[in-house]
Amino acid sequence: MDRLRLVSLIKQKQSYLSVGLDTDLDKIPPHLLNSQDPIFEFNKAIIDATRDLCVAYKPNIAFYECYGVKGWSSLEKTINYIGKDHFIIADAKRGDIGNTSARYAKTFFETLKADAVTVSPYMGSDSVKPFLGFENKWVILLALTSNQGSGDFQRIESKDAISLYTEVIKTSMTWGTDSNLMYVVGATHPNDLVEIRKIIPNHFLLIPGVGAQGGSLSAVSDASLNDDIGIIVNSSRGIIYASNGEDFADAARAKAKELQSEMATILNNRN
Amino acid sequence: MDRLRLVSLIKQKQSYLSVGLDTDLDKIPPHLLNSQDPIFEFNKAIIDATRDLCVAYKPNIAFYECYGVKGWSSLEKTINYIGKDHFIIADAKRGDIGNTSARYAKTFFETLKADAVTVSPYMGSDSVKPFLGFENKWVILLALTSNQGSGDFQRIESKDAISLYTEVIKTSMTWGTDSNLMYVVGATHPNDLVEIRKIIPNHFLLIPGVGAQGGSLSAVSDASLNDDIGIIVNSSRGIIYASNGEDFADAARAKAKELQSEMATILNNRN
Repeated sequence: MDRLRLVSLIKQKQSYLSVGLDTDLDKIPPHLLNSQDPIFEFNKAIIDATRDLCVAYKPNIAFYECYGVKGWSSLEKTINYIGKDHFIIADAKRGDIGNTSARYAKTFFETLKADAVTVSPYMGSDSVKPFLGFENKWVILLALTSNQGSGDFQRIESKDAISLYTEVIKTSMTWGTDSNLMYVVGATHPNDLVEIRKIIPNHFLLIPGVGAQGGSLSAVSDASLNDDIGIIVNSSRGIIYASNGEDFADAARAKAKELQSEMATILNNRN
Repeated sequence: MDRLRLVSLIKQKQSYLSVGLDTDLDKIPPHLLNSQDPIFEFNKAIIDATRDLCVAYKPNIAFYECYGVKGWSSLEKTINYIGKDHFIIADAKRGDIGNTSARYAKTFFETLKADAVTVSPYMGSDSVKPFLGFENKWVILLALTSNQGSGDFQRIESKDAISLYTEVIKTSMTWGTDSNLMYVVGATHPNDLVEIRKIIPNHFLLIPGVGAQGGSLSAVSDASLNDDIGIIVNSSRGIIYASNGEDFADAARAKAKELQSEMATILNNRN
């Protein structure tokens, strides 16, 4: 999906919501466990219930991989079921030497047909660039993640008083463009979002950490919206596990609707 | 596999060689492509030809994942075929927020039954620790990787003139022990290996980059062997693609034998 289409979907739906598909057999409603592919059945119901409210789905690859061959099959079916009208983010946090990153890119962009993949910057330019050579496909590079441990290394300051995550952004922004490169910045760091916007005013940001991890939608929106909206805010557990009864899809829709309505209000108030 | 067993295998075989299984349909001998599972057939022949010469196999997960469900099936069969007498390293470079890293750990240690998994440190402690809670299983944390791009961020110096990769080692060494935590240090950095050994004299190091990437076995051995040997040196393409004719397994054996003989000589000269 290209940038124009993504921006147009967001504006049309008044939503910059991504629904994270961290689908876990230990957490989905027990009545689904007897079906042939409970993970896919769960995802299918969540997708049907939220399709009009979100612009993106973000399957978290760990939750599929952990079931081996069966999990990959559920993942492929899920991505096919989502179809072409949503931005599909393979949340995989990959990154390796050049020939290996090229394989991961092929996996997520060609085999799985995702629009974007999350990539770790630790191994540097030749670990990231192989992901950037695919038309209308995106790298979403980890910058400042939402978790507690983000402070361990990402905030280390260099001799020039530049934090590692800032250095990652400043160095990597030349590897791609604002039409094939986004950054992950956790919703748990609204003050840093303001500083990050000064460095990359036009790039899209993927913002996880609203909901279960405690980030505030209005705070992150205030800090980072730009003229093209420029952010995708993800919620996973807060939406998909809103109920684990037979009403799970309706409950997920209600939670997604709550976020989408708040987004619509925020966007209206800006105009 | 526990540390005692690993050290004993190394001493008994006079080998600290890992054979990297970066199995690529574009590079394996064409006569295998007609079999039902060419990736597994290739790996099976390579394993049969090198079993007595190496202590570890390192399947590079990207090369399996890129074929989706079929690739995961080849990977599972390969790991089962290797069996319990080799140290199996899932080269996956994973790392995510805690609940997700826990899933990746389950994938590689329980579903796939690998002994070790490579992990990226970028997201900090809570992204690494979930991998450390499995008995006789290992995290191999990226420190200073073998590729050109390792210079982009891993060598950034902090205010206290400590490079990021050194900070990663110093911080993370308290998260585990020298019996469940190793580090990746590329063979392309022999001088840095000497400095790293001063910080972690007892930890095992996984050293890729000998062969196709240009590292020297004798230089890295001089710089990093300890009383328990303490290193595993990996070669992938240099061994498995030594020939792409019908003699590919014999050619792989000859290359592995060359490295193992050099290792035996190095170990003898130290005694």
